[in-house]
Amino acid sequence: MSQLEYSTLGFESILVNLDGAVLIVKMNRAKQRNSWGGTLAEEFAKVFELADKDDRVRVVILTADPTAPAYCSGADLSQGPKFGGTLNDAVREPGLYFLYKDHRDNGGKVSLAIYHCRKITIAAVNGHAAGVGMTAMQLPFDIRFVWAGAKLTFPFVRRGIVPEATSSYLLPRLLGHSRASYLFVTGTTISPTSPIIQPLYHSTFSTREEVFPAALALAKDLAVNTSARSIAYTKALLQHPGESIEENHLLDSRGISLLGKSGDAREGVQSFKERRDPKFMDKLDGQGDGWHAWFPWWKTVNVKSKL
Amino acid sequence: MSQLEYSTLGFESILVNLDGAVLIVKMNRAKQRNSWGGTLAEEFAKVFELADKDDRVRVVILTADPTAPAYCSGADLSQGPKFGGTLNDAVREPGLYFLYKDHRDNGGKVSLAIYHCRKITIAAVNGHAAGVGMTAMQLPFDIRFVWAGAKLTFPFVRRGIVPEATSSYLLPRLLGHSRASYLFVTGTTISPTSPIIQPLYHSTFSTREEVFPAALALAKDLAVNTSARSIAYTKALLQHPGESIEENHLLDSRGISLLGKSGDAREGVQSFKERRDPKFMDKLDGQGDGWHAWFPWWKTVNVKSKL
Amino acid sequence: MSQLEYSTLGFESILVNLDGAVLIVKMNRAKQRNSWGGTLAEEFAKVFELADKDDRVRVVILTADPTAPAYCSGADLSQGPKFGGTLNDAVREPGLYFLYKDHRDNGGKVSLAIYHCRKITIAAVNGHAAGVGMTAMQLPFDIRFVWAGAKLTFPFVRRGIVPEATSSYLLPRLLGHSRASYLFVTGTTISPTSPIIQPLYHSTFSTREEVFPAALALAKDLAVNTSARSIAYTKALLQHPGESIEENHLLDSRGISLLGKSGDAREGVQSFKERRDPKFMDKLDGQGDGWHAWFPWWKTVNVKSKL
Repeated sequence: MSQLEYSTLGFESILVNLDGAVLIVKMNRAKQRNSWGGTLAEEFAKVFELADKDDRVRVVILTADPTAPAYCSGADLSQGPKFGGTLNDAVREPGLYFLYKDHRDNGGKVSLAIYHCRKITIAAVNGHAAGVGMTAMQLPFDIRFVWAGAKLTFPFVRRGIVPEATSSYLLPRLLGHSRASYLFVTGTTISPTSPIIQPLYHSTFSTREEVFPAALALAKDLAVNTSARSIAYTKALLQHPGESIEENHLLDSRGISLLGKSGDAREGVQSFKERRDPKFMDKLDGQGDGWHAWFPWWKTVNVKSKL
Repeated sequence: MSQLEYSTLGFESILVNLDGAVLIVKMNRAKQRNSWGGTLAEEFAKVFELADKDDRVRVVILTADPTAPAYCSGADLSQGPKFGGTLNDAVREPGLYFLYKDHRDNGGKVSLAIYHCRKITIAAVNGHAAGVGMTAMQLPFDIRFVWAGAKLTFPFVRRGIVPEATSSYLLPRLLGHSRASYLFVTGTTISPTSPIIQPLYHSTFSTREEVFPAALALAKDLAVNTSARSIAYTKALLQHPGESIEENHLLDSRGISLLGKSGDAREGVQSFKERRDPKFMDKLDGQGDGWHAWFPWWKTVNVKSKL
Repeated sequence: MSQLEYSTLGFESILVNLDGAVLIVKMNRAKQRNSWGGTLAEEFAKVFELADKDDRVRVVILTADPTAPAYCSGADLSQGPKFGGTLNDAVREPGLYFLYKDHRDNGGKVSLAIYHCRKITIAAVNGHAAGVGMTAMQLPFDIRFVWAGAKLTFPFVRRGIVPEATSSYLLPRLLGHSRASYLFVTGTTISPTSPIIQPLYHSTFSTREEVFPAALALAKDLAVNTSARSIAYTKALLQHPGESIEENHLLDSRGISLLGKSGDAREGVQSFKERRDPKFMDKLDGQGDGWHAWFPWWKTVNVKSKL
């Protein structure tokens, strides 16, 4: 893995570039308004799965060319609606409401790949965004930066379909149900400066050109100043905090035990006391100390279609 | 159902009027400060159950006369406290903590009827609101508009009782626990412009007279521009998103499959490309295509008292 | 219990003073920048457990000396990192992911004691706060007041460890995941006036000296104007609202039944109608009417280590 050269992987719909510890992923369908089509979904899922396993990568940024018509304009409708596939027999399985031999939404596949990536993920939304451009391309990320002039919309109920790409799970968790219900039920077009959606974004910029450089600066800071294992365990705690505060107490106690005596913890404290940048060395995988044997502590769910 | 004439149903405490696809429900107890009493609860529950099944109704607005002393001033205390009923033996049943032969709170019955209504629901809060006027009369709705001058209060702990009408479930989901705890634990009176409660409201107006017309304008837009099935499935996803992001991926994939090839999806995309209003025709029920056979995917709970 | 004299309990790291119905707890390690060390954790856990059972106490305020270097500067790192203990064999038990013979995080023990306290809890954050000073010392409280000049930080990923003290459970519930992920993943230092963290705080003050008196004034208001049983049941509803809106309807209906005919409910309504302060008399425990026999309605979890 460590010698992987992203530029040789034959991606068509995205441009991928490893800048130090920051993997930069750029949509490359400006002529199609960066609409969701072609090989985009497969390539996004693949690049986030690779980033998850590549020890060199500490942060992944998703962005677009600031001169493109949009950050991501949603599904490619040029050929008419092509949503969804066939519905087959529902098969109930233990621990799941159902698991059917059926279509799986492409946006959701990408959302899951991003959500499961154990590295820091940043969306640098430097243009308009609609549909899957609001959902898979923004909601599963840890941090979102945005251009103040972006037109944002979750238009699903206005197109006769439903919110996809796990957005009905993610948006209420991110913003609460008051904001999420309004955005989904109205399908309105909104500005990132509206108080209804503003808390989705961690920084807002007045020009499209400012968004990516600011995201890159934060990414470079975080790549140096955070521990890879701390980030992976922290993201796992946020996604799977336990079913009660007591179970969470067990889970974070274990995290403190696992990492509290690690090289990264010693270096984290030492560098803090010496007022210098840390040199975190612990790897996520493959260091032979088995710290990740404790993962996952949650029930995993296989969502592969049985088709 | 389709010939139902709401004005003939003998409602005493509410006025009901079907304006196109918008059902307008108005409190009609101005002389009692629109307090919660008389036949109000039964009539609210009934009208939202009817609206759920009436194919003509796409949006329901709840409001009050803007000249009334309040939007809803809470429980009618004119006869002294009359909260609650008797407590009997607890009966534990599978899948429930308990199900006892016992009193059921009226506010909660109304909250459930509104929450379960598969149409778009809007509260046009054009006056002061207290107690059940903050809970059942606002929290189960999809969208809330408010008069900036309204005095708002959840006074339960100051009256020796507890938050009712499922508000301890709904308010933290809507606003997060930081705001909800403060509002419930202090029982304070607050302005809708306070940052502690502001995100509950999607638009704020400086006069009482502006609130309802703005809600009606949005309702008429949504009645035309959203698909009834999209709204029903979207609301179900928000209420029952699955126990994990993976289960949500299965649920929204199914929604995309069910609706992606529907007449409404074709019309939604076609009208978007032709830059015209859509003409959505698919009905929620009774069209013979069995799309709703997939509902409910969640565990349903019978809350009827065994008294 | 009722004769308990807090000043005689031999606390070293905290100062405790009962002012009417308000228990004031002050950090007393200014020379160590109010860092988390010494006997602090044990004393905090003890005082909140005592307050929970002391009928005289209606509100607990945690604060620091406004002239101290910090409200709480986090773990005492003067001796180098000493996070965590040993990890032993995991023991799976019914209803829990695991329960191992293992270290328990001190911060989490304190968080649980505060979270489980059935009285109103207020954090008066009148100085800088880092690490456990942001987590156990703020997140489990019902209400937080803050000095606008405070420097706030959740630095865990920058020290090679993970968020502790049940903060990965509490912070997303308080503020939503958009804000919580940013704060935990960046470990950045932030001002309470930043929109990313502002909703954590219910009042913000421009000087350190103003914070505690404002908290005390609110505490004295709430001590008189709220019912002890109403507060306890309301906090329980917020922490354990049921697994569905229907279960919540059963739980708050029972609360209304239990308290609706109580002396406090009669007094709450009567005093409201007479526009005077109430005199709530009902005690949490020990009044012989068994109202608390209904607690707990949730699954309790024993988190004691089996070491």
